[in-house]
Formats: sequence, structure tokens, C-alpha cells
Amino acid sequence: MSSGGSMGMGVGISPGNVSVYHGSNLKVFDRRIRVAELVLRCVICGLGVLAAALLASDTQVREIFSIRKKARFTDMKALVFLVIANGMAAAYSFIQGLRCAVSMIRGNFLFNRTLAWAIFSGDQVMAYVTVAAVAAAAQSGVLGESGQTELQWMKTCNMYQKFCNQVGEGVVSAAVVSLSMVMLSFISAFNLFRLFGDSSNKVKNNTCSGCW
Amino acid sequence: MSSGGSMGMGVGISPGNVSVYHGSNLKVFDRRIRVAELVLRCVICGLGVLAAALLASDTQVREIFSIRKKARFTDMKALVFLVIANGMAAAYSFIQGLRCAVSMIRGNFLFNRTLAWAIFSGDQVMAYVTVAAVAAAAQSGVLGESGQTELQWMKTCNMYQKFCNQVGEGVVSAAVVSLSMVMLSFISAFNLFRLFGDSSNKVKNNTCSGCW
Repeated sequence: MSSGGSMGMGVGISPGNVSVYHGSNLKVFDRRIRVAELVLRCVICGLGVLAAALLASDTQVREIFSIRKKARFTDMKALVFLVIANGMAAAYSFIQGLRCAVSMIRGNFLFNRTLAWAIFSGDQVMAYVTVAAVAAAAQSGVLGESGQTELQWMKTCNMYQKFCNQVGEGVVSAAVVSLSMVMLSFISAFNLFRLFGDSSNKVKNNTCSGCW
Repeated sequence: MSSGGSMGMGVGISPGNVSVYHGSNLKVFDRRIRVAELVLRCVICGLGVLAAALLASDTQVREIFSIRKKARFTDMKALVFLVIANGMAAAYSFIQGLRCAVSMIRGNFLFNRTLAWAIFSGDQVMAYVTVAAVAAAAQSGVLGESGQTELQWMKTCNMYQKFCNQVGEGVVSAAVVSLSMVMLSFISAFNLFRLFGDSSNKVKNNTCSGCW
């Protein structure tokens, strides 16, 4: 436990280990975390826009016994939710990524607790929203692909093959977005924790707040 | 910003404010956080078992033109996922709640980073799993309740009214479980952060790890 702690988490910024690590390991590690954060925010922004565009532009018209039928993403509420969620995630990540890039270029890292909590909370909320949206859309997608004979819901994807393929591409993009968002919220939790961390693994009897 | 920080988050355990707060405010606040955590874990355990039981025991038999049809939760993959997710959440919360209660009764709070991270990560994973399961099941529920005429999916809930009502109750319980899980993961992030926190809102130029 404690060896894992000192390996994985013990790169904090206490006076004790700054002197040891700061010249090489800590700076490299810091830089990697920063770059990972920026890359993830860019991935979310790009794939979020892609997913929303793929889904929102997806239509297919079929004629069945001279009746024109048009499939659109608005036919499924889950896809509308997914488009909105991905639009939100992309916009959020664009703003956050811009801030991230500007602060990296300028090299100034003004830090306060409220801001760090706000960023962590924002990442968390976006992660939950995108995970929920992908889950709902994936459920709809599975129903469209394989139907549910017990409930007399027929497969629709053999009728609207092109429409379904494009929905599938959109959902895969959105799944990558939500996974990236989950990873990002772990990184922002780690940053929050590490920035204020001291590396002393002391037993604290009086000041413990949670149930450990 | 900084006033918010010192109000909301500034109840950390730095040498500076322990002397001021520790006698009254901090202890009361600590106790509330601990009780809230224990209550949430109990709620998740109870409602998780309830949701899983409601869904897994839900069946309805109908005879339509002398053909017996039976609706079960296994007819919808989303409901199977929801039962599994709620079972997992209940078991996880039972173990965590037990630990929490034992540590409260004994009054000893052994704390180390790896363990705190493990608890936070566990809460996070369970929160994502339960949110995804509820989203998928809610999507199925909406389809069952109102159908989707564009895709020729008929309403099934007017056929299986009793079955659908019980699914609804299960999904509502599961939604409360997932909301509690989300709140809990915020609490465990807050504990993680606060336990290692110092209350100095300093500008740290060299040791910042993230993009702020």
C-alpha cells in the first residue's frame, strides 16, 4: 500500500520531496500530465463536434409502397440528447482547452481552491452527462440493430441501413468523448489533490473528515 | 473567488486554522460530512437491493388470442444491466458502509493516500456505472411507455400495465441510487482533497501540475 502510494501518488509538493524530485522526475511528470490534459480536451472538442455533426446531418428517405418515409435523428429522443450532450462537451472543452493552452504558453499558473473545485466539478458533470447520453443512445442503437421480438419492436436498421451506419459512427465518437471526459475528471481530481497535497502519510486522529 | 474559497473550502487542516476552528466549527462540520457519507451509503445499499428485487421479480402473463405471453425483465437488456449495476452498487456500499461505521464507532481513522484514492476511484466507477445503467433503462422505459411510431415500435405498456409500473418503481429507486452515488463521489473527492489540504491560497509558480 504505502510503497504504491509513494510510487504513484507520492510525487506531491511537500518540502521533503521537492528537493529530491523537482529537478528531473517531477517536472517531466508535471509536463506529461499537462500535455495529457490538453490532448484530452482537444480530442473531446474535435470528436464532440464530429459526433454531433454526424448525428444531426443523418437522414435517409425510403419509399415503401409509394409512401415516402424519412428517418431523422429527431425520431429518437436518445439521439437528440446525444447531439446536445456532445455539443455541450465540445463547447466546454474548447473553452477549457483554450485556457489550458494560454496558461501553458504564458507559463503562469494562478491557482485557487474555488477555481480548482469549479474545474473538477465541471469535468465531473460533463462526464456524467456524456456517459448517460452514450448509454441511452447505445441502448436505442442496440434496439434498432437487433430489435426486441418479445416486445414487438422490429429491427429498423435493415430498412434504414445507411442511416443506422451513420448513427453507429456518431455513437462510437461520442463513446470516445465520454471515456476521455471520464479520464479527464480523474486527471483534474488528481491535480486538485496533488497541488494541495503534502506527502506525509501520517495517521491523523483528530482531523479526519471522512469514513476511511 | 477567494472569499468563496475561504468560506466553502477553507476548513482545511493547516496549522493556521486548526487552532481557530477546531474546537467547534470544524468538528461539527466533520461530523456532518461523516454522517452524510454513512447515510448515503445506507441509502444506496437499501435502495439498490430494492431496485434489483423489484426489477428481477417483475413478471406479467397475458393471454392474447389464446397465446400465452410472458413479460420478464430479461426481455430488455437494459433492465438486466440495471439489475446487475444495482446489485453491485448495493454490495459495494454495504462493504464501504460497514467500514465507515466501524471506523466511526472505534474512532480510529487510519489514513493513507493509496487507500483514499482507491475509495474515490471506486465511488467514481460505481457512479458512472449506475448513471449509465439508469440512462439506458430510462430510455427503454420511455420507449415502452410512449412507443416510437416513426420506427414502428409500439407501446408495450398498455399491454403489460402491471409489469411497466413495477419497472417504473425500480427505475426510480435506481435513479435515487445513482444520484446518491454521484453525491458520494463528490464527498469522497472533498474528503480526499481536504484531508491533505492546507488552507493557504498561494500562487504556486513552479509546482503546478495542471492547466488552470
